[in-house]
Amino acid sequence: MNKIVHLSQLIESELNTIQFPSSPENLYDPLTYFFSIGGKRLRPVLTLLSAELGGTDKKEAISCALAIEIFHNFSLIHDDIMDDAPLRRGKVTVHEKWNSNIAILSGDVLLVKAYQLLSKQKAQHIPELLSLFNQTAIEVCEGQQMDMDFETREFVSVEEYIEMIRLKTSVLLGCALEFGFIVSENSLSNRKKIYEFGVNLGIAFQIQDDILDLYGDPEKVGKQVGGDVKSNKKTLLYLIAEKNATGELRAKLNEIKSELDLNLKIPAIQEIYEVLGVKKETKNYLDIYYQRAIDLLESIETDNDKTSIIEMIDVLFNREH
Amino acid sequence: MNKIVHLSQLIESELNTIQFPSSPENLYDPLTYFFSIGGKRLRPVLTLLSAELGGTDKKEAISCALAIEIFHNFSLIHDDIMDDAPLRRGKVTVHEKWNSNIAILSGDVLLVKAYQLLSKQKAQHIPELLSLFNQTAIEVCEGQQMDMDFETREFVSVEEYIEMIRLKTSVLLGCALEFGFIVSENSLSNRKKIYEFGVNLGIAFQIQDDILDLYGDPEKVGKQVGGDVKSNKKTLLYLIAEKNATGELRAKLNEIKSELDLNLKIPAIQEIYEVLGVKKETKNYLDIYYQRAIDLLESIETDNDKTSIIEMIDVLFNREH
Repeated sequence: MNKIVHLSQLIESELNTIQFPSSPENLYDPLTYFFSIGGKRLRPVLTLLSAELGGTDKKEAISCALAIEIFHNFSLIHDDIMDDAPLRRGKVTVHEKWNSNIAILSGDVLLVKAYQLLSKQKAQHIPELLSLFNQTAIEVCEGQQMDMDFETREFVSVEEYIEMIRLKTSVLLGCALEFGFIVSENSLSNRKKIYEFGVNLGIAFQIQDDILDLYGDPEKVGKQVGGDVKSNKKTLLYLIAEKNATGELRAKLNEIKSELDLNLKIPAIQEIYEVLGVKKETKNYLDIYYQRAIDLLESIETDNDKTSIIEMIDVLFNREH
Repeated sequence: MNKIVHLSQLIESELNTIQFPSSPENLYDPLTYFFSIGGKRLRPVLTLLSAELGGTDKKEAISCALAIEIFHNFSLIHDDIMDDAPLRRGKVTVHEKWNSNIAILSGDVLLVKAYQLLSKQKAQHIPELLSLFNQTAIEVCEGQQMDMDFETREFVSVEEYIEMIRLKTSVLLGCALEFGFIVSENSLSNRKKIYEFGVNLGIAFQIQDDILDLYGDPEKVGKQVGGDVKSNKKTLLYLIAEKNATGELRAKLNEIKSELDLNLKIPAIQEIYEVLGVKKETKNYLDIYYQRAIDLLESIETDNDKTSIIEMIDVLFNREH
């Protein structure tokens, strides 16, 4: 655990060394602000852990780890505009504090900054890092578009939903991890395994996020529960409920969407979900992707210690040792 | 001239081979649409001409030429949102035809696509291409931010304005040209010269654009004149007028801003500018940057023929042979 905290601090201090120019203020102040509000820095830590698992000093992977974190922050700034989100990590979002135009352009420059960091890696690794990064970045955009499309679509299947979260959030974990193996010049077979490990871990993590929104302990989760319920978001829970509901329950499920009082809406939804076996079925999906991730991690051929990566999984899933 | 037309057609047909995926529709349809509305493709033609001047077959530079054009289109899609522009090349803009969120995300994916094309170049050239491209992309964003900032600023100096157009539009011409010399492995000295040639050419071109808005023949310019006058844009003409105007002329210059009838506003402004020697002074700036560009082109050490690049300059400045 100490190791993960240490790596996270290392990333934080490396991020602090990235000085944005002072001018134009309206382009760079939002970025300085956005990085000051913090974040868990999970993705770049995965890159460093993966580089070490691959047998290379973490210093060799710092720039591409930072590229991952900076890309992630770019996507948050633009997503916040699209979602019209007022807050991010409890602080005012960039487009609210400045305006949408400034958030668009600051985000753009941040995406380029990610490429700039990537290009600081050793020349012989750049083509492979770049190719994976490009593919990942495109997929993240595709996932965000699917997520927006789902909002107005009547029917979304479980498979479509999982494909959306794979693209929107999970491939970036795969990319973060494979970066460590590119830098440490691992075999293509191991690279594919650690990438898929990250993707499956990401899907499991996102499903857990859906479950915690309705069933989590607010103190442990660190945010108000019921946000998805309030906005009638098509989470995996909801899609499974819709798939299973017939007759009267289906009518109830539709009716409850318009309930404005969350103190009535949440228990009512929990009751419907209980009858429909929604939590259990969702948990099954989580377990499937979680187990796939674990199996993939185990299949990676190396003499190096996997303990730190396993500890990182525990951090992600809030599991105690 | 035939050569330039031929290269422009080559770029157009290469752009047509870039097939965007069919899904998500809302992400890729806007891009297919945006490329279908055409464009002069001047920037990628510069890259191909430069590669040939550098002594390499143009085929070696196709991917990075396309990267330049795709980056340019990315910046147009995002700029159109920021400028709230209803039309581009006479057609409805992406954010108007779809919506701003879709235009943001389609733009993002297009920027990544530019990097994807860049990464198709030979591996040994990628680090240098990437480094120049990153620097250029960041500067283009800085220029766009300065341009937006100028709208609400009371005073903008001529120097600040020229720095803005250098960043917003001219460095991309420099980058397009230097790409050809990176691919043809020219000397650093020649690379610097062709880059600066492009930058100075770009500044001269932008100044010409300002002049044509007020003094151009609509049939030749291909668009309605007076657009800058209508929106009281701080063009170089305007900034020079403001610099030179005192007393009664200064008052007149301020008053005319609120005139809504363009048929009155345009001749009134032309009259004020005439007294203040604005057109002549602006033309002087144009000539200075134009001449610098020509001198830089001449200073490039090569046995290859510069005729095609010179013809390209004539195309840009609408000069007949």
